[in-house]
Amino acid sequence: MSEQIEPIATMAAELNRLPGIGKKTAQRLAYFVASMPLEDVRSLSVALWEGRKAIRFCQTCGNYAAGERCAICEDAARHNGQICVVRDPRDVAAFERMHTYGGLYHVLHGTLSPMDGIGPDQLRIRELLSRLDSERVREVILATNPDVEGEATASYLARLLKPLGVRCTRIAHGVPVGGDLEYTDEITLQKALEGRREV
Amino acid sequence: MSEQIEPIATMAAELNRLPGIGKKTAQRLAYFVASMPLEDVRSLSVALWEGRKAIRFCQTCGNYAAGERCAICEDAARHNGQICVVRDPRDVAAFERMHTYGGLYHVLHGTLSPMDGIGPDQLRIRELLSRLDSERVREVILATNPDVEGEATASYLARLLKPLGVRCTRIAHGVPVGGDLEYTDEITLQKALEGRREV
Repeated sequence: MSEQIEPIATMAAELNRLPGIGKKTAQRLAYFVASMPLEDVRSLSVALWEGRKAIRFCQTCGNYAAGERCAICEDAARHNGQICVVRDPRDVAAFERMHTYGGLYHVLHGTLSPMDGIGPDQLRIRELLSRLDSERVREVILATNPDVEGEATASYLARLLKPLGVRCTRIAHGVPVGGDLEYTDEITLQKALEGRREV
Repeated sequence: MSEQIEPIATMAAELNRLPGIGKKTAQRLAYFVASMPLEDVRSLSVALWEGRKAIRFCQTCGNYAAGERCAICEDAARHNGQICVVRDPRDVAAFERMHTYGGLYHVLHGTLSPMDGIGPDQLRIRELLSRLDSERVREVILATNPDVEGEATASYLARLLKPLGVRCTRIAHGVPVGGDLEYTDEITLQKALEGRREV
């Protein structure tokens, strides 16, 4: 029995490498691309390649940038003394979708993971320290993920920064809004209890 | 508040045009592409563009082909007198996944849809008729979708082909394997009843 033709198989194999695109979805997408007008495939292909080539990292915070500095660091109104430390640029995008945080960011490009050979020197920690000198930083908000590496990175940074006289805060853990207590794991529930406030 | 940078927005907009890729998925994919090694993005981009350019239609059956004729039409063992008529090349792929059908195909590239101005002349029906002359065709299996256009196309073809002395069959409608009678719509159930067989 004959299989799908080579160009479609190649497209499907490449699409299959994207996250969340399984084998079947990749094949469905490849067939769709095969039926798209040439011009549309061209603009998709060009957007991916030229887009990827155009991506730079902000020299200050490490976020994605089209130029030397990202739009957030370029915005004078955002220099309010707060720096939110995150693992990668996707986390910046998540915070920006909130539309309420008005400070700056610092992207570490990873979290401490000794097993994978990622120590403090592999992260953008030196750059963070130099910003404490050059910018008026009132508060560093440690917003790495609430997983093992994220917690380890946050406590490492807290131990490093506090002696320098900078206020360090950690984002709250607790029950997600809209979540259900019954389906909340014990550790999250415990964190939610520990973090309780007067009402 | 600043939004995502331009190259990522463009990538997301292009990815958003693919079927099943919503706005959020498109943005997630765009961020992923932004973090991929340049070489990998290049091969993805090239696979899509070169792949699309390489796609031809088989001159005999209308299926996707890398050359003048598709692999199925090139395979002498498949010339068994059966032609399975489908709407588009994706349907050929669906049949081929069965790994049991041993005949040939004919891709109409659409179904009759007078509302959209698609009549018999817009489909590859003339090509099908000429195959009846040049190939020894015993049976034409009408395998268009079980929807209004598919049914209309199948009965049109049956009326056209039967007087020429060719056996015409229609794929069976019924309850899908693994389906649940309770959740089967009435028309499907009626077709399943009408198509019942001795056991």
